[in-house]
Amino acid sequence: MPTQDTPLAEGREFDLIRQMRECWGNLAIAIGDDAAVLQPPRGERVVISTDAAVDGVHFRRDWLSLAEIGYRAVTAALSDLAAMAATPRGVLISLTLPANDETHVLDVATGIGDAVRAASTVILGGNLSRADTLSLTTTVVGSAFAPLTRAGARPGDLLYVTGQLGGARKAWQELERGTKPDGALLERFARPRARIAESRWLAARGAVAAIDVSDGLGGDAAHLAAASDSTIEIDVHRVPVFPGATLDDALAGGEDYELLIVSRAALPADDFARQFGIPLTPIGRLVERGGDVRFLRDGKRVAAPAGHDHFSR
Amino acid sequence: MPTQDTPLAEGREFDLIRQMRECWGNLAIAIGDDAAVLQPPRGERVVISTDAAVDGVHFRRDWLSLAEIGYRAVTAALSDLAAMAATPRGVLISLTLPANDETHVLDVATGIGDAVRAASTVILGGNLSRADTLSLTTTVVGSAFAPLTRAGARPGDLLYVTGQLGGARKAWQELERGTKPDGALLERFARPRARIAESRWLAARGAVAAIDVSDGLGGDAAHLAAASDSTIEIDVHRVPVFPGATLDDALAGGEDYELLIVSRAALPADDFARQFGIPLTPIGRLVERGGDVRFLRDGKRVAAPAGHDHFSR
Repeated sequence: MPTQDTPLAEGREFDLIRQMRECWGNLAIAIGDDAAVLQPPRGERVVISTDAAVDGVHFRRDWLSLAEIGYRAVTAALSDLAAMAATPRGVLISLTLPANDETHVLDVATGIGDAVRAASTVILGGNLSRADTLSLTTTVVGSAFAPLTRAGARPGDLLYVTGQLGGARKAWQELERGTKPDGALLERFARPRARIAESRWLAARGAVAAIDVSDGLGGDAAHLAAASDSTIEIDVHRVPVFPGATLDDALAGGEDYELLIVSRAALPADDFARQFGIPLTPIGRLVERGGDVRFLRDGKRVAAPAGHDHFSR
Repeated sequence: MPTQDTPLAEGREFDLIRQMRECWGNLAIAIGDDAAVLQPPRGERVVISTDAAVDGVHFRRDWLSLAEIGYRAVTAALSDLAAMAATPRGVLISLTLPANDETHVLDVATGIGDAVRAASTVILGGNLSRADTLSLTTTVVGSAFAPLTRAGARPGDLLYVTGQLGGARKAWQELERGTKPDGALLERFARPRARIAESRWLAARGAVAAIDVSDGLGGDAAHLAAASDSTIEIDVHRVPVFPGATLDDALAGGEDYELLIVSRAALPADDFARQFGIPLTPIGRLVERGGDVRFLRDGKRVAAPAGHDHFSR
């Protein structure tokens, strides 16, 4: 029976939740009701997405620390808000935890907290369950006056990408081979950034559509092409490659969490690079109606790289 | 490489998502962007919650059909909106699916669709991943002008419960023993209802705090008591027991998804029963500051039933 110093009822589940709450401090606001309540700024629309990270599918525990796993799962979800040019308003975390991981719950919580802090947002609530497999399902809630979608592009538009691609894939391949990636590559894999400020900056300067590169450049360009009913041409030699990765890594690799950005007119790439310390590179254009993606080298069509599908691994 | 008749990129994951989308028809709106966008009615606040259902923890596949598992998982999540007197605006479903369940994805989707339809809401988006264990993590989004919380109660208030308690626990026990519960008990377990319309009706008639009975009457009353800094007395003989269940089932059993409702003055219980076909029963009161829960029989204190904790199973 609860006593007065027990704000949640007794039980192992509530002990663990309490430990995580203490770890998060004022990052976790108003947790403890049946649901979280938030008020988006007047006139803004609510943007919401959910993303799962499952042990053995999306991450491997011998490759990353539990803090990195928590960080990466939440950042991947926040990247979907970046793709919509939305300002994060909070996250909800549903954690499933094997019995022998209870003592590690604070490691996961630390990584979750770091990702939430990096995005200047808060933890609104969540859920904790026993399970055989460690998994994190992150729901992100944001708001935007005019969210960017995949459908805002049309023939004649220009295609850009933020940052450099292929680093996460290269790191993944090296880890899979049992070699340790060098510092920058490993950091790229373990500590991606959600391009939230970058996306809002670009939306304010004329971006009309966006998607984050999570399934690989070809796969995500195909989503954009289908949603916008436009065929996209990508100049392979323009694609910015993360140092240490190959062009193939950059074309096929997912999970870099950079953004594909579409605009009607040229974007101020130099200002962007000065502001954010990463490049903004024009890599192609939308040429006609249709939903195709074509990769060009010296103006000639080349084969598409294979995409990234968690169901074919 | 995608063709024009492929609105999502190729790959097994997208095939399965497409199948579910077809099953849901116009229950699933605007799925396919990085995030869903919604606009709550002007002046209303956004209410959001997430809830997991994991095979072997929250359900067993030999007890329920996959459609019932999908229905129950989504209804449990929607019940958190009922507890806040919020109107559902949509759900997001994160599904993890073992490889040999791919052919059953439509069974799960059918149950999800039934629960969404029963709550007059829509599917806003989601996520599909391979995993060793079947699980559904449901995020529910609603809105309310003045959400009910657990903290709105104070000493002097009255405590009510909707419907009858203990049916789900009784069914669970019989299933665990290998006997099949009778029709009404099994239905109660497999097809609970989220008391959404009921809760909004009560909020409009003076309810000041609420919680859904998911952890058991004692456990959930304790949450309410802690959040409202009030000690709650429950008259054991007044607790409405589901036909076929025992008083112990009603006191300790969770997952009935009925609501504990607090109000300052008497609520119109007869009107409620006429409107919704279930009772609204006064079962106790908030007596003083503190966070205790006391069970009384003939005015004398009796032992509290054990709560319900997924981490101690």
